[in-house]
Amino acid sequence: MNKSIDLLIESIINLKSPIVVGLDPVLKHIPQCYKLEYLNRQDKFAATGELLYEYNRDIIDNISDIVPAVKPQMAFYEMYGSYGILAFEKTIEYAKSKGLIVIEDGKRNDIGNTADAYAKAHLGKVLTLDNEEIESFNVDFLTVSPYLGSDSITPFINEAITNNKGLFVLVKTSNHSGREIQDFSNSNGTKLYEEISKYLDNNSELLIGKYGYSALGAVVGATYPDEAKLIRNLMPKNIFLVPGYGAQGGSAKDIVNCFNEDGLGAIVNSSRGILYSYEETYDNSSISKQDYLQCVRNSVLKMKSDIVSELRNHKSKMMY
Amino acid sequence: MNKSIDLLIESIINLKSPIVVGLDPVLKHIPQCYKLEYLNRQDKFAATGELLYEYNRDIIDNISDIVPAVKPQMAFYEMYGSYGILAFEKTIEYAKSKGLIVIEDGKRNDIGNTADAYAKAHLGKVLTLDNEEIESFNVDFLTVSPYLGSDSITPFINEAITNNKGLFVLVKTSNHSGREIQDFSNSNGTKLYEEISKYLDNNSELLIGKYGYSALGAVVGATYPDEAKLIRNLMPKNIFLVPGYGAQGGSAKDIVNCFNEDGLGAIVNSSRGILYSYEETYDNSSISKQDYLQCVRNSVLKMKSDIVSELRNHKSKMMY
Repeated sequence: MNKSIDLLIESIINLKSPIVVGLDPVLKHIPQCYKLEYLNRQDKFAATGELLYEYNRDIIDNISDIVPAVKPQMAFYEMYGSYGILAFEKTIEYAKSKGLIVIEDGKRNDIGNTADAYAKAHLGKVLTLDNEEIESFNVDFLTVSPYLGSDSITPFINEAITNNKGLFVLVKTSNHSGREIQDFSNSNGTKLYEEISKYLDNNSELLIGKYGYSALGAVVGATYPDEAKLIRNLMPKNIFLVPGYGAQGGSAKDIVNCFNEDGLGAIVNSSRGILYSYEETYDNSSISKQDYLQCVRNSVLKMKSDIVSELRNHKSKMMY
Repeated sequence: MNKSIDLLIESIINLKSPIVVGLDPVLKHIPQCYKLEYLNRQDKFAATGELLYEYNRDIIDNISDIVPAVKPQMAFYEMYGSYGILAFEKTIEYAKSKGLIVIEDGKRNDIGNTADAYAKAHLGKVLTLDNEEIESFNVDFLTVSPYLGSDSITPFINEAITNNKGLFVLVKTSNHSGREIQDFSNSNGTKLYEEISKYLDNNSELLIGKYGYSALGAVVGATYPDEAKLIRNLMPKNIFLVPGYGAQGGSAKDIVNCFNEDGLGAIVNSSRGILYSYEETYDNSSISKQDYLQCVRNSVLKMKSDIVSELRNHKSKMMY
């Protein structure tokens, strides 16, 4: 029985919150009050890394009682090189210390021993010079790209089995042109994303948890509700990570199809819609940390309420 | 005119060497003589990071006069967290100081502002807290995954235009099960990799150089020579990065179809076949640095000679 998926399901039910907050720190959107003490420092990237960690810590403290998980997006940390990665590592550690599940959005993949290296780095343990095995990033879930085929996904599944972790494979992404690849259809009219869905369904037992959900998850965008219905039917057990809510245009109505009748099976992400919602009413340069964090919390509570109401209206066997 | 592709073409011609050495450091394969001074250190990842940098520096010193480029594979650095990334950054800097072109194998991608963040981190400049723009990884080329469609590739192309960089989009990878996705065929029998090839051909002018080659490149595995011929015809101008040579089974004969009649248009990678060829004759624990580096150099020279001979036998308008 996979422990990561069970913890996620339990936390969703306990908090009545199928929501993940995306930790996508973008400097120009972070309020000035956070930046002041880091300005004009010699080492720009070190200063930014420290700022990102302080900022994330405040966000985490402010939401850890109302959401089960956070999703740091690797790109926004990689921007600042090794200092950004250090902030990323410290953020993971801090989030876990607060009981949050960490979903790393890295969309990693490669083949053979390279895929294995990524899998061990993010979900497993790496061998040291002294032949010890120690954890590196040690996140709970990682997003994985499928373009290299099933043998490139196997190393991630293997590490997830060994270490009680999970993964979300990109299936149907929330952007417009994802369809160029993902909706590519064969002569039977079967689309590529359907093929990938079937593969994930076929392998779901490898990472199944005691509630019947699998930690072999799928990324299914909020912006394609019709396709979500189809994909949900193709893989009833696999957990969905649903991006595209809020800033990208997906509404509470749009994500209902990603869920099963028990109100489970999916976790909806919002990043900008939560972190930068303050910009509608406040000015970047004058908002206080307190007011900022209140905006963040209010946005999460609104998202939670919108989604749970919609699920209660549509799902016959809601578990929460 | 794109400068990165022009430098790469010139360097291939001058050195008579369409070869890139993959910097994929794997601890258990690195000779013991490199490890001795880093053993039993308190901070395992810091020690490993320092070792990787020292090791890479020796490799670079030893091959920079016979190959135009190196290809560090991000996974093997990410394994050691921020210390690994620091080793990666220092390796890039050192390789460039020795006149080598750096191809980062990261297979990155995402959508919207996240793709833009990756593109700026790896190929462009990032905004600091003090509103300056400074380079982060600053590699010359980056490998990019296409699963998210064309709007996810555009930010990388844009940064490559602005900063005279290039990218290699995964088209036909060298592994076995890549075909599950990449060979997915529509009702006309057109395969997904052909569609992506056409997209890259259509956009090749955006990153074209003065020799008629485009820095909007493609990854085309050495293990599929028949498909390589077709793909070469679909995009005559785009530069190919060819993995799968040597350890993965591709021979000099197999990669001929990746090249045009001028002997240009592709650069062939080998990682394990070069870095760990010593294992056929030497023991990991007893080989000296000097003998090890000689093995590395001999493997590169052999690969170069094998490939160039094969090209001279088959190409009518060889430029070198």
